[in-house]
Amino acid sequence: MRYSQMLIPTVKEVPADAEVPSHQLMIRAGFIRKLASGTYTYLPLGWRSLLKIINIVREEMNASGAQEILMPLLQPLELWEKTGRDVAFQEILFRFADHHGRMNTLSPTAEEVVTSLAADEIRSYKQLPINLYQICPKFRDEFRPRFGVLRSREFIMKDAYSFDATVEGLDESYRKMYDAYCRIFDRCGLTYVTVEAESGGMGGTDTEEFMVLSDSGEDIVVQTEDGSYGANVTRVEVDPPAKTGKAGRDAPPTQEVHTPGVGSIEAVCGFLDTQPHEMIKTLIYGAGEMSVVALVRGDHEINEGKLCNVCGVSAVELANEQTIRQLSGAEVGFAGPMGLAEKVNRLVIDHSVGAMAAGVSGANKTDYHVKNIVPGRDFPMEGENVLVGDIRNAVEGDTHEGKKLRFSRGIEVGHVFKLGTKYSEALGATFLDEQDNEKPCIMGCYGIGINRILAAAIEIGHDEAGCILPANIAPFEVLVLPLGDSEAVGAEAQRIYDELIAAGTDVLLDDREARPGVKFKDADLIGIPLHVVVGQRGLKNGTVEIKRRKDAEAMTVPAGDAVGKALEILAEMTKT
Amino acid sequence: MRYSQMLIPTVKEVPADAEVPSHQLMIRAGFIRKLASGTYTYLPLGWRSLLKIINIVREEMNASGAQEILMPLLQPLELWEKTGRDVAFQEILFRFADHHGRMNTLSPTAEEVVTSLAADEIRSYKQLPINLYQICPKFRDEFRPRFGVLRSREFIMKDAYSFDATVEGLDESYRKMYDAYCRIFDRCGLTYVTVEAESGGMGGTDTEEFMVLSDSGEDIVVQTEDGSYGANVTRVEVDPPAKTGKAGRDAPPTQEVHTPGVGSIEAVCGFLDTQPHEMIKTLIYGAGEMSVVALVRGDHEINEGKLCNVCGVSAVELANEQTIRQLSGAEVGFAGPMGLAEKVNRLVIDHSVGAMAAGVSGANKTDYHVKNIVPGRDFPMEGENVLVGDIRNAVEGDTHEGKKLRFSRGIEVGHVFKLGTKYSEALGATFLDEQDNEKPCIMGCYGIGINRILAAAIEIGHDEAGCILPANIAPFEVLVLPLGDSEAVGAEAQRIYDELIAAGTDVLLDDREARPGVKFKDADLIGIPLHVVVGQRGLKNGTVEIKRRKDAEAMTVPAGDAVGKALEILAEMTKT
Repeated sequence: MRYSQMLIPTVKEVPADAEVPSHQLMIRAGFIRKLASGTYTYLPLGWRSLLKIINIVREEMNASGAQEILMPLLQPLELWEKTGRDVAFQEILFRFADHHGRMNTLSPTAEEVVTSLAADEIRSYKQLPINLYQICPKFRDEFRPRFGVLRSREFIMKDAYSFDATVEGLDESYRKMYDAYCRIFDRCGLTYVTVEAESGGMGGTDTEEFMVLSDSGEDIVVQTEDGSYGANVTRVEVDPPAKTGKAGRDAPPTQEVHTPGVGSIEAVCGFLDTQPHEMIKTLIYGAGEMSVVALVRGDHEINEGKLCNVCGVSAVELANEQTIRQLSGAEVGFAGPMGLAEKVNRLVIDHSVGAMAAGVSGANKTDYHVKNIVPGRDFPMEGENVLVGDIRNAVEGDTHEGKKLRFSRGIEVGHVFKLGTKYSEALGATFLDEQDNEKPCIMGCYGIGINRILAAAIEIGHDEAGCILPANIAPFEVLVLPLGDSEAVGAEAQRIYDELIAAGTDVLLDDREARPGVKFKDADLIGIPLHVVVGQRGLKNGTVEIKRRKDAEAMTVPAGDAVGKALEILAEMTKT
Repeated sequence: MRYSQMLIPTVKEVPADAEVPSHQLMIRAGFIRKLASGTYTYLPLGWRSLLKIINIVREEMNASGAQEILMPLLQPLELWEKTGRDVAFQEILFRFADHHGRMNTLSPTAEEVVTSLAADEIRSYKQLPINLYQICPKFRDEFRPRFGVLRSREFIMKDAYSFDATVEGLDESYRKMYDAYCRIFDRCGLTYVTVEAESGGMGGTDTEEFMVLSDSGEDIVVQTEDGSYGANVTRVEVDPPAKTGKAGRDAPPTQEVHTPGVGSIEAVCGFLDTQPHEMIKTLIYGAGEMSVVALVRGDHEINEGKLCNVCGVSAVELANEQTIRQLSGAEVGFAGPMGLAEKVNRLVIDHSVGAMAAGVSGANKTDYHVKNIVPGRDFPMEGENVLVGDIRNAVEGDTHEGKKLRFSRGIEVGHVFKLGTKYSEALGATFLDEQDNEKPCIMGCYGIGINRILAAAIEIGHDEAGCILPANIAPFEVLVLPLGDSEAVGAEAQRIYDELIAAGTDVLLDDREARPGVKFKDADLIGIPLHVVVGQRGLKNGTVEIKRRKDAEAMTVPAGDAVGKALEILAEMTKT
């Protein structure tokens, strides 16, 4: 392609609303343009990259035995009501009536549609396993879209759904997808880690995320220092702390103190001259009909996913003020563990609270706190309705199986889930096994954010001057830059361009009448990984320059060797 | 691919709601499944065909110099308000509010988005011409989706938009697209005609449709018998009739007759023992502030597009009852031309009415009609507010430039439009010309219905037994059918399959343990154009059978020649 024939509107200014490098550079390099909040047009360069990513994903999915289909984006809301996900996705599901007054939604994912397809088409174990996937736009009515295409309202996702007859079959289908994902991200030139994850609103059990570590990531990735274990911060299992040496039972008796209008952890600490890690945070939840009180240390954050797991429920919701008043007998901010265990269905205590010698908490009396609360003495650590477990987010200093944890930010580019039978049971996707018994299909689901792959590649591949893209997903593999307006330069650049194209290479020729400085700036900005520079001075000596975008220095090579050398470097770059 | 590994749910029953062959066969052959009214999932076979069509479209669009981009499907309604198309598309535009209360629509087309992109990115004539296209889902809230994927609520469209500095430039861009479309439809194996079309709500002037002639088509295509001229029935220019020999001025004077409660053409004809072609239909319209009376013969249908053209307005709307009463002085059904010309801004008379000797029409008096109305005697045929022209739909017997017209039904698979400056002016897409004058870009737009190509190919390529697909867009090029369970047969089929794949052919191997009858039935149904049948009996003699799907008879060839012969036939089939 010729640069002059393409719409490549590079810009110098960093857009005001672009906070992260990939967002800034995708605008500046002319890859994308914003249409409205969280929606972007992909311009020719950006779209070329996405098509290359889509192609890699398609090849590896097909190689794994998955079958490509295309499901409607317009989905009847009714179908989502059958699985309860109209509620679970409340926040981000677009909803609207059509001419006939029927409610529709725009697909954020397609478990419901694919499972009802399976319900219609799968009859026998002989048809299993089967894995169906699609690559198409998805929609989320994000309240706060941000970071460009990293969190947008419309994006392209590859979503795959496996159906198996047995749990072992699901394990195998899941493993195949995991392996395919590794090949995909490898070919896309990403460095990534896989971590255990929370299943969130999806249902199911095992789930892992593919994370590209980057400061722009919205997720927190936690790994042991040796890399043998990794998990999303929402999921990571932390070791319970050793009991402190100082035995709690030697603590002085509890003491009620007047703390008028002092409700928050910070305020209490300031007022009583204590530290957050010496406080016991008392949170009151509802889980269906059940009341749950959760205790975590004042310097820790409750993790509701873990709380659900410990309680064996699928969702918890913070109690409203009225319930809090009723259970604690005090205004919000003054709940504490003493005397509450008897009033609720579950008292769930984080390991760290259990290990405290003594702590400060609310007195269940407005404007009062209690000092010297000793776990096991002043509130029960065991009993029918008492559970002790890991219900908080990991923090610096925590360990997993004795190994120190390391925290980083990550961009989720892929996600593999074992779903089990949640959807197949809700939507009747059953099969007859060898004994003619009707059983629900055992499902997995597997997603890849196509746009995020490009953004993540830029997050980890850029410098001050612009993008540095992996050769397999860059809009072009090679950029040929003729400098100046000499005819000899033009002809030589054209020859190199033609020969590279004849060799099957994806090449852009910067045929613009522009100053060398402009061409170099744009070349660095758009991030094509290999540049061949044809200048008048070099050409007089029979040489041209070849430069990897990531390198500071160019190599001078005889003009006649340029194509061969470029192909050699490119082969190295695209090898996986 | 192996048949046993694919989801190909063929069915015998014709689905109850499927009226046309392509809809019936796409369901029966396992190409699609309905999700909800007007939305379909593409199963592996159907999606493979669509991907092949998309690939052909992409290649030819790129070869024409157009650049691929991707615009959001979620579009701010605000943008549509700027061009007034929120009103023009009233009927079929999905509309809904997001979290922030902003109104969105789902793209049925993208003139607004691409033109505002051009407004931001195009500054100079040096950037022109430019042609941007995308291939993505589109949405229409059809009140009555039907004919399967021929008229659905969600479909895949290739839409392209050209921007030029001059009218000649637009002509050139339009011609390039026209030529690319011919190559695309040729490669897709379609037989088609191009016809002049109405521009409808798009704005603009010249426009042509690519029509596949088929009884299932929703459009009426009109062509001269020699094929030198073709147009959509809504657009076709018909010759004015010769004046009848019998001079109207010899007719008896007008005569008012009492026709109590007799309003419709049919009722009047019955009551007065006259014929529809002897009646003058009088229709009252509004065009903005202007009142328009249109006269067409009782056996003709008014064509509002033509009426607009003759009046030089962009839209007309039938007057409401109140306006009709006010202008005609009678209830609806009794308007007539006598005395109306003076009361309205325009009297528009169809050529055929002008050629009538005398006619019957309403008396502008409730329950009365008038006989012997002579054009030019009893109402004016000329004057400041009188226009005579072609304002009706063509009918059998009409001619165009003296040539007899032939009517057929057609499926619109492509449409090319010269838009002019409607969108660029509304959205500020201007450029500076060589003299630094700011001018609006001159636009064209060009659409192809991807799904319709497949459906149209089936409409013109099927028999009682199933689909007969062109090799370039069939899900596979070759189907290898081993019959029976002999090991020798299996091995020979596998060899042929492997060698065809090695030769770059797209092959499906029917490796199912199924009776020959089942395999043949499915083979005919799914419509892969070339079958290689490996049977035990033939193999004993060292032969296999090769059969074109469209042929009744198979050829017997030596097994060793099968691959060569298949490749030879395939080369013939895919040649364009």
